[in-house]
Amino acid sequence: MTYAPPVEEQKFLLRHVVGMAELATSDAFAEATPETVDAIVEGAGAFAAGEFAPLNRIGDEVGARWDDGKVTMPAGFREAYRAYVEGGWGTIAGPAAFGGQGLPLSLASVVMEDLGSANMGFSLCMMLTPAAVEALKHHGTGAQQEMWLPKLVTGEWTGTMNLTEPQAGSDVGALKTRAEPAADGSYRIRGQKIFITFGEHDLADNIVHLVLARLPDAPGGTKGISLFIVPKVLPDGTPNDLRCVSIEHKLGIHASPTCVMSYGDNGGATGWLIGAENAGMRAMFTMMNNARLNVGLQGVSIAERAMQQAIDYARERVQGSRAGQPARIIEHPDVRRMLLRMKALTQAARALAYYCAGQTDRASLGDAAAQARADLLTPLVKAYGTDVGVEVSSLALQVHGGMGYIEETGAAQHYRDSRISPIYEGTNGIQAADLVGRKLGLEGGQVFARLVADIRADAQERGEEGLKDLADDILSLGQGLAGARGDDALAASYPFLTMVSVATAGWLMARQARAAEQAEGDPRFLAMKRTAARYYLDRIVPEALGLKAHVTGGADLLYSVDEDMLSA
Amino acid sequence: MTYAPPVEEQKFLLRHVVGMAELATSDAFAEATPETVDAIVEGAGAFAAGEFAPLNRIGDEVGARWDDGKVTMPAGFREAYRAYVEGGWGTIAGPAAFGGQGLPLSLASVVMEDLGSANMGFSLCMMLTPAAVEALKHHGTGAQQEMWLPKLVTGEWTGTMNLTEPQAGSDVGALKTRAEPAADGSYRIRGQKIFITFGEHDLADNIVHLVLARLPDAPGGTKGISLFIVPKVLPDGTPNDLRCVSIEHKLGIHASPTCVMSYGDNGGATGWLIGAENAGMRAMFTMMNNARLNVGLQGVSIAERAMQQAIDYARERVQGSRAGQPARIIEHPDVRRMLLRMKALTQAARALAYYCAGQTDRASLGDAAAQARADLLTPLVKAYGTDVGVEVSSLALQVHGGMGYIEETGAAQHYRDSRISPIYEGTNGIQAADLVGRKLGLEGGQVFARLVADIRADAQERGEEGLKDLADDILSLGQGLAGARGDDALAASYPFLTMVSVATAGWLMARQARAAEQAEGDPRFLAMKRTAARYYLDRIVPEALGLKAHVTGGADLLYSVDEDMLSA
Repeated sequence: MTYAPPVEEQKFLLRHVVGMAELATSDAFAEATPETVDAIVEGAGAFAAGEFAPLNRIGDEVGARWDDGKVTMPAGFREAYRAYVEGGWGTIAGPAAFGGQGLPLSLASVVMEDLGSANMGFSLCMMLTPAAVEALKHHGTGAQQEMWLPKLVTGEWTGTMNLTEPQAGSDVGALKTRAEPAADGSYRIRGQKIFITFGEHDLADNIVHLVLARLPDAPGGTKGISLFIVPKVLPDGTPNDLRCVSIEHKLGIHASPTCVMSYGDNGGATGWLIGAENAGMRAMFTMMNNARLNVGLQGVSIAERAMQQAIDYARERVQGSRAGQPARIIEHPDVRRMLLRMKALTQAARALAYYCAGQTDRASLGDAAAQARADLLTPLVKAYGTDVGVEVSSLALQVHGGMGYIEETGAAQHYRDSRISPIYEGTNGIQAADLVGRKLGLEGGQVFARLVADIRADAQERGEEGLKDLADDILSLGQGLAGARGDDALAASYPFLTMVSVATAGWLMARQARAAEQAEGDPRFLAMKRTAARYYLDRIVPEALGLKAHVTGGADLLYSVDEDMLSA
Repeated sequence: MTYAPPVEEQKFLLRHVVGMAELATSDAFAEATPETVDAIVEGAGAFAAGEFAPLNRIGDEVGARWDDGKVTMPAGFREAYRAYVEGGWGTIAGPAAFGGQGLPLSLASVVMEDLGSANMGFSLCMMLTPAAVEALKHHGTGAQQEMWLPKLVTGEWTGTMNLTEPQAGSDVGALKTRAEPAADGSYRIRGQKIFITFGEHDLADNIVHLVLARLPDAPGGTKGISLFIVPKVLPDGTPNDLRCVSIEHKLGIHASPTCVMSYGDNGGATGWLIGAENAGMRAMFTMMNNARLNVGLQGVSIAERAMQQAIDYARERVQGSRAGQPARIIEHPDVRRMLLRMKALTQAARALAYYCAGQTDRASLGDAAAQARADLLTPLVKAYGTDVGVEVSSLALQVHGGMGYIEETGAAQHYRDSRISPIYEGTNGIQAADLVGRKLGLEGGQVFARLVADIRADAQERGEEGLKDLADDILSLGQGLAGARGDDALAASYPFLTMVSVATAGWLMARQARAAEQAEGDPRFLAMKRTAARYYLDRIVPEALGLKAHVTGGADLLYSVDEDMLSA
């Protein structure tokens, strides 16, 4: 039930997948010395394990409680959050001009992974604030940045994203919340938002809501959406006209209050426009790209935590025999199969997420190709990472047998917690649509082609036939989808996303296997790395090849029945 | 949130997959006339939807409650159970000599499917009693049968299976409960059992526990286990020395009390031996085979229920647009993909379960080949059916988007409920070991070879290339496993089970597609059947081909790391 941060693995990935040493040669990331990086990786793991992990159970069992508009976190959460702020764990990738350390996002990703493993529900609070920081950093005025960023960067205040309304989920453009200009340059916000993560809580002195709303006479759909800062407490210290009217009763992440927020019940909440009028979607995507990377990482977090628990259980539970002697279940082949699968999937999803974060860091140094690759990979990180989180937590539960189904064991909580991540921050279906609808066509398909060429070259060099076949397949399938009818491309999108994700993750596993052959370090870790890579390349890559028929099959079969037939 | 029994589908399968008309030509099943069969299918669906489905939510939210050894079911359950008994729904396949209707098991399977869809937790009570009836029918003395069967057949009394102990789960042979002979021919039972489904409740006047225990000086392991009848209330009306000491707090199936049972705290519970001394495993397998078929069917039940809810939601939820018009999400290609996948998987798993039940019915008429095929298929029905239940309930939750994660929606309950079925009645890993360790070698491999030959012949005739390839693969893989090292065979067992399951289910889907082309009936249903078969054969069969590398890969890679490396 404890969490052992995978420090060795995280350092290895920062070195060989992110290329931290290369990043540190830039002026911007000169502070990311090996000593600093190691200290942060080790410190974050120790902090998450020591302060956050012990609160995971009470977070689930007691959860956030709503009473008359106020949300109270379980015992211990306020203290743990204060320790997070005081330790500066939120400041790592924050802008240096406003109290941040200006270190690479890939390093902050390690911290996020640790927090998510230790306490997934709680970690959402730490995830959303940096997304708000990003939006303000890129789209806020200088005065807005000075007003809001310093305390958001430290975490003294927390941030939220207010997008969803009952009729506007995946279809953000359908939102109805209104913003009317006031004489003083501010706006009066009126409307109801749902599914607002940490929309209300007792951890911080202020909550800075970033709210999407429509100006009067704004165009319909996504072209008429603007983004507003709507703080819980106004700069003059008075409460804003907003209220958490209820929180949801959810399958998991009980420590994360999912709020229904009502704005302007008493005349209008005060807000300030961020960026230009009707340009809210652009600012929102700044937040969302950051959040999508972090949600993908959440899949890694919960997979790691669930897997650790399953391995510990399998090492202790005696059942059956081998060679005439009582055996612990870790000795049985089919349990080994599950553990190896969990290990390979978790490492692969982590490599994909860290690699994408590293590309984002390169992009921040002005590398346009890296930005394009990060854009391409973001939907993969989000969807594949969260699918891995669900699959691994299910396997971990299965390893426990009947005990896995008993809540006290803890495996069931991971299974429940993990299931939200394929849904929020854009369902995985939306990610797949983003891949085939936008990302595949970036630069006329060249961004995708370059990625596949990189995969193919390494596969060829390493003699990885399965990976080479998969690279060839996704290239021709991708070219086919680029010219396909919209429905055919969308019908193919999810299985295609899985194939591209496995190819990319398989490539990163092959590169790690090579690094592990040459690297010095803990021989146990290096042996495990080589075996996980082998398992992924030899057994999971071929599964992805089996998805090809979905991609080539087209949409006609899906529409060969009408809705009444589906219900028949 | 309602349940619409798939009556048309169930009748179609009884006709074209089970071959009910042919069964009815036998003396034993002469009563299974088309009119009787239709009346039972229609009546069971209406009963389950009308009486059981409305209690599904309260069963989850309130659940079974324990207090001082007594278990109280939620409001309405006693009345619903009484209606079940009075309607004779438990008697369908029960032995005619003891109040049963002696109808085919395949017909009783329809009833079980309906009850499981309507209220999975509750339906476990209805599932275990027939398993106890089977054990007594095959292994009890005439006097025991007269004493216990009449009220078990009607359901006035319920039955349980008491196998598991804390140290004896999958490894039943490790159990320690003791049975000492008394002077009057009965035995004194002492020990603790865990995970006893409906071990205590307030639905019936008596609970007939079938308990595995060891006689003094019995050999170790499974060779020294005997089976005993240990009723809650003794024939003289006095309470037996047994007690439910607690119930578990579980992820799902809250309406099913999972009991810790203590036997003999006050000197010894009174029990009577069923069958010969030390022959308990044989009797237990009689119960387990029945129960494994029914647990596989549970996967179908929960898949059907979850899928119906997802389709209903997708038909109503408006989000995004198609051709410039607001669209309900059922119109979007990726949602269609999920719905078609759910439909195809559910129908395929149902076909596998019903077919196996039909083979069991043929076996009961003396058909040894049918018995062998049922023996071969039972682990497939259990493991594949329950894997489908989990996958489909997860897809159904996903179709709901954020609403799926909110407990009030009901999708989350199906997801939680479904997760137990790959675990109990022998984990799916145990099923896979049963397949490669015992069933594959039946009659020197001829039972398996005959099944594959049947699949291959139909695939060839219908021009189903993917299915033919899969049949060829599983035949050669199966032959390879028969000669493989034990570890290699076990390492391959689970993916191999999936491949054989998909091949067999694909075969049954192809046969149904042919029948649907020729059959008369609701054209909407027949069109859906053809499309579901096409989807399964064209898109899901190729996925199974992608599992081949797991089967040929062997165990060495799994053991190339030691336990410390796995934890590294």
